[in-house]
Amino acid sequence: MSALCLAQLGSYTVGGRTVRIEGQAAHKVALSAGLEIDYDPNGRFWIEQAYVQYFVPQTRRLELPLVLIHGGGLTGSVWETTPDGRPGWLHDFLAAGVAVHIVDNVERGRAGFCALPGEWDGAPIVRSEEESWSLYRFGDAAGYARREPYPGQRFPVAHLDELTRRTVPRWPATVSAQRRALVALIERLGACIVLGHSQGGGFAIELAAARPDLVRAAVALEPHGNFSSIGAVPLDRLPLLAVFGDYVEQSAAWRDLDAKAQRSLEAWRSAGGDAQVLRLGQHGLPGHSHMMMMDEGSGRIATLIVEWLADVTDARSA
Amino acid sequence: MSALCLAQLGSYTVGGRTVRIEGQAAHKVALSAGLEIDYDPNGRFWIEQAYVQYFVPQTRRLELPLVLIHGGGLTGSVWETTPDGRPGWLHDFLAAGVAVHIVDNVERGRAGFCALPGEWDGAPIVRSEEESWSLYRFGDAAGYARREPYPGQRFPVAHLDELTRRTVPRWPATVSAQRRALVALIERLGACIVLGHSQGGGFAIELAAARPDLVRAAVALEPHGNFSSIGAVPLDRLPLLAVFGDYVEQSAAWRDLDAKAQRSLEAWRSAGGDAQVLRLGQHGLPGHSHMMMMDEGSGRIATLIVEWLADVTDARSA
Repeated sequence: MSALCLAQLGSYTVGGRTVRIEGQAAHKVALSAGLEIDYDPNGRFWIEQAYVQYFVPQTRRLELPLVLIHGGGLTGSVWETTPDGRPGWLHDFLAAGVAVHIVDNVERGRAGFCALPGEWDGAPIVRSEEESWSLYRFGDAAGYARREPYPGQRFPVAHLDELTRRTVPRWPATVSAQRRALVALIERLGACIVLGHSQGGGFAIELAAARPDLVRAAVALEPHGNFSSIGAVPLDRLPLLAVFGDYVEQSAAWRDLDAKAQRSLEAWRSAGGDAQVLRLGQHGLPGHSHMMMMDEGSGRIATLIVEWLADVTDARSA
Repeated sequence: MSALCLAQLGSYTVGGRTVRIEGQAAHKVALSAGLEIDYDPNGRFWIEQAYVQYFVPQTRRLELPLVLIHGGGLTGSVWETTPDGRPGWLHDFLAAGVAVHIVDNVERGRAGFCALPGEWDGAPIVRSEEESWSLYRFGDAAGYARREPYPGQRFPVAHLDELTRRTVPRWPATVSAQRRALVALIERLGACIVLGHSQGGGFAIELAAARPDLVRAAVALEPHGNFSSIGAVPLDRLPLLAVFGDYVEQSAAWRDLDAKAQRSLEAWRSAGGDAQVLRLGQHGLPGHSHMMMMDEGSGRIATLIVEWLADVTDARSA
């Protein structure tokens, strides 16, 4: 890769709340070193914060910072090196002159999770490689055993293990906490652009719909979520780009999710927003999966998104 | 900050193992969106990998990459922006021309944790802010309520919350898995330098003692751990720098840990290695805590370490 010169590089946490644990009995905990320690579970703790790592290139093409929101069962690492070792969208956006703030949302990655008793409902669930294979539309379920993808599929299936190693547990009941942390993030950042993938795409749409005073454009990669907040605030031509890959017709789950996403775009337009759909397969970029930021040719999708962002943010500041 | 130009920026995972879950019943899981999903807990999963994020500056002072290993209950975020918002050691090392590979070890941060039944013993434990206050030697226990640190203390106690938000749960029984992931990491990297903090300092010493064919120098910040492996392999003048802050005498726990660390340095020397002790307070840098990479004046410690590394790695390649 050619050199990337950064004006800033750092991280912060945002949102969350304190919890005080009292009256629990201290107890012995056996460490695997063979040592027993006294563990006092009482005291003051923070939970439900998000972690954000940011990179600001020295040469900027877009004035506004771009918030990147990962999907369910994943972390901010999805934007980094692709499973087959190519530079990911973090690199592509920086090289294009875009400042990025990469979120590890509540419970994921460096944000940590809540291990305190009585705070979060339910146990964490994990996505198996088989579920990823089908849900991310790499191929049909029968093809998993032979790692035989759909014809023309661009996800690097020979490196599926690396994606599986980046898959992390999730709690079913933290969506509200994640949403709160994201609102705290954009309130801290001020005017910004948001881009989210899958569950994160749903959050990107919700965030923009709730706070068009802060979000100046939104990009949603195959979003899903709860879009009921669209329309609470007039959207005044707020630009939204929804990006979809191929093989949607092969998946019953995705036919439903796609239809639901289209209805959210209709709601967006009804609220006065400007929603555009980019079906990659109809724009000379066939074969993309749900994990389009990791697919071969991922850099070309990043370029299309930056071009769109430059157009719509220029148009609005003009 | 002045601009940092990077020749490379990326991430990878390393180590770990696959687990196959079979014969478990699928069940409904209620998402907080009000939606019930069918969750199939069976399939193929990866656990016990480490996540590594790397940054290679365009201008190099040290030829060898530096592996940074966080302490217990923490992640690779400890090397980033300090709690009071100053550039951290990641920035300092890059500006000094050192390529860094920042680990999130097994179970922490972006490495994810194992949520599969029957794999890991015990429940995760979390460090309270009160425990951090005492264990990191910010002040005595009685001073916590008023956030009144030891006189001259350099940790930014007004920003203690930010450290608490970066504190994550840990499992008691994963030390062996963490050690295996670190060995896999240095086997992937080849010749390297390791720097670890606290539990990570113990790992740095163990790694270097076990694999002096790969580790060319080690830095341990107030290390603790199991040092029984020192001496299994001749250390042939392998350089080790152990760095300590102040207020050790005020803490019974740290008097013990310090004495144990000194015995590990004796063992290092007996095995033929070259061990040096840097007590910051005796070198014009008083007031440092266990979290020296976050303290005011942290940059001066980074500079001392880079100077030492440049000296010992030059001397060995000469």
